[in-house]
Amino acid sequence: MNKLIKFDNVYVEERASVVGKTEKAGPLSAYFDMCEEDEYFGTDTWEKAESEMTHRCLNLLMSKKKLKSDDIDLICGGDLLNQCVASSFGVKESGVPYLGLYGACSTFAEGVICASTFIKAGAINRGIAHASSHFCSAEKQYRFPLEYGGQRTPTSQNTVTGCGSLLLSTAPSPIRVKDGMVGRIVDAGITDVNNMGAAMAKAAADSLTEYFALSDKKASDFDIIATGDLGREGFEICCELLGDSIVGLKDKFTDCGMLIFDLEGQDVHAGGSGCGCSAVVTAGYFLNKLYMGEINNLLLLSTGALMNPTTVFQGQSISGIAHAVHFERNSVYA
Amino acid sequence: MNKLIKFDNVYVEERASVVGKTEKAGPLSAYFDMCEEDEYFGTDTWEKAESEMTHRCLNLLMSKKKLKSDDIDLICGGDLLNQCVASSFGVKESGVPYLGLYGACSTFAEGVICASTFIKAGAINRGIAHASSHFCSAEKQYRFPLEYGGQRTPTSQNTVTGCGSLLLSTAPSPIRVKDGMVGRIVDAGITDVNNMGAAMAKAAADSLTEYFALSDKKASDFDIIATGDLGREGFEICCELLGDSIVGLKDKFTDCGMLIFDLEGQDVHAGGSGCGCSAVVTAGYFLNKLYMGEINNLLLLSTGALMNPTTVFQGQSISGIAHAVHFERNSVYA
Repeated sequence: MNKLIKFDNVYVEERASVVGKTEKAGPLSAYFDMCEEDEYFGTDTWEKAESEMTHRCLNLLMSKKKLKSDDIDLICGGDLLNQCVASSFGVKESGVPYLGLYGACSTFAEGVICASTFIKAGAINRGIAHASSHFCSAEKQYRFPLEYGGQRTPTSQNTVTGCGSLLLSTAPSPIRVKDGMVGRIVDAGITDVNNMGAAMAKAAADSLTEYFALSDKKASDFDIIATGDLGREGFEICCELLGDSIVGLKDKFTDCGMLIFDLEGQDVHAGGSGCGCSAVVTAGYFLNKLYMGEINNLLLLSTGALMNPTTVFQGQSISGIAHAVHFERNSVYA
Repeated sequence: MNKLIKFDNVYVEERASVVGKTEKAGPLSAYFDMCEEDEYFGTDTWEKAESEMTHRCLNLLMSKKKLKSDDIDLICGGDLLNQCVASSFGVKESGVPYLGLYGACSTFAEGVICASTFIKAGAINRGIAHASSHFCSAEKQYRFPLEYGGQRTPTSQNTVTGCGSLLLSTAPSPIRVKDGMVGRIVDAGITDVNNMGAAMAKAAADSLTEYFALSDKKASDFDIIATGDLGREGFEICCELLGDSIVGLKDKFTDCGMLIFDLEGQDVHAGGSGCGCSAVVTAGYFLNKLYMGEINNLLLLSTGALMNPTTVFQGQSISGIAHAVHFERNSVYA
């Protein structure tokens, strides 16, 4: 049964985001810490590039607070590559204890909930949540060789090249992790790999409904309620599924995959996707708004599609999962 | 920095294990709950078979305590398949909130630590930790088509077909989860995919050393100290790396991968491997010994090799990770 996990003393001590050139060319450009124009990130393969991006993001996060690896008790994170190698190779050098996660594109929220719960339990003092994705490594693994130049359907999404990470601890800061909820797997019967948004929409609607049923909050208590990477197609389906069931949702409901790119001006079809999407939009954009006092409450629902090419070839449907995290501006401190 | 996470009130309420025919033919046969002679588990693909095995294992676990899905607050688990699909498809029907994990063959201990920490934090009342692997789905994905009949090196291991799961809660039972430690990634520079044991040995030695440095315990406080799936080759390397640094270790040090098969009588080369290895040996064999009072303290170090075929083809080394869990007989209750 779903549980609302309340965090009394978990704060976002620092945040970092690293993106690629397509994300840099998008509307949120100014909010990201670092951009790498070279899609290889100075390495010789896309897989190594993604690990290098994670490595840079973690180093940046720690250096902002002048911390060393020894100051960090746990890293919770993951990515989309087979056996989550972008993260394991990216984290390795730090020597920080590591919990590898796989929640597809929901991994960022999963990491925040895990690290926050370890802090709540008193098991660690300071933890990092991170997630990454890379357009080239994802295309190569999930779809077609890039050189093939395959045409994409209008419902397809563009995997975000990006890594977002949060440093979480009990040290009071302007941003609190107020609560979180682990989602359940929901199968909408979708089998089209070019329509991941549709596959995740039902899970997003389920988690959002469940979150408001469990908490004493209303949509009006939030300034932004954002799904992870449904994209335009999936977001519309999610809105249809929810109807008017959550009063006041419509004004503040958005999707990281729709925000990160200019859907009209950039060739990204239905919008952004990938673990890195909600990670960089949250770490870079949303939490900046909280930090600056432009908003006070954010509800993030990172959404993941659970499948691999083999399960699709074998005719199995693509199910979805969505984990919720409430970030709150800590006005006492801010 | 590594932390010893102490659990004051986390108990193993129930346990379940499902294995394949090679495991059934091994020396621990009598300790497993269920064996399926059909490697397809009644499905038409090996991937679906692994999901079906997980599905049966979770159902068995809940049915033993007459519990329904609604009574479970969280499932923490994973497997070796790309995007951890064996678990997501195996868990889906339950509708229980799900945290997907990827720790390669260390996933079982990772799941126990996660679920126990969520209980310690008061975030959930009752959680399940599980991990699975399947010989055929793993061979197909990581090595060669089974039909190819490739010859294997003496250092190679045999992926265990098995799923092990534990039901964890605050309800006192004869078996306690006393403490746990999340490991860090250690790279021994191994690049031979047929010698995973060697790749994990250094991580196992690191976690074991770190565990005893952090805790106030000695090797003599345990009846069994077991690595996850180093196999004969990796276990020997681990023993060499440790030397005499941990007093009294030798008498009680063993490896799940060496126990699950008859290394002389079965054609399994260096022994068992896979997420399912430490999962079924612990859920089936070790915890039965604790339950029956044959032993009082078990230290499990599930070990994982972090790689995928692409990283190996790209010349990257295979690093390892090992997570530690101390299970104790609860003599007050027993």
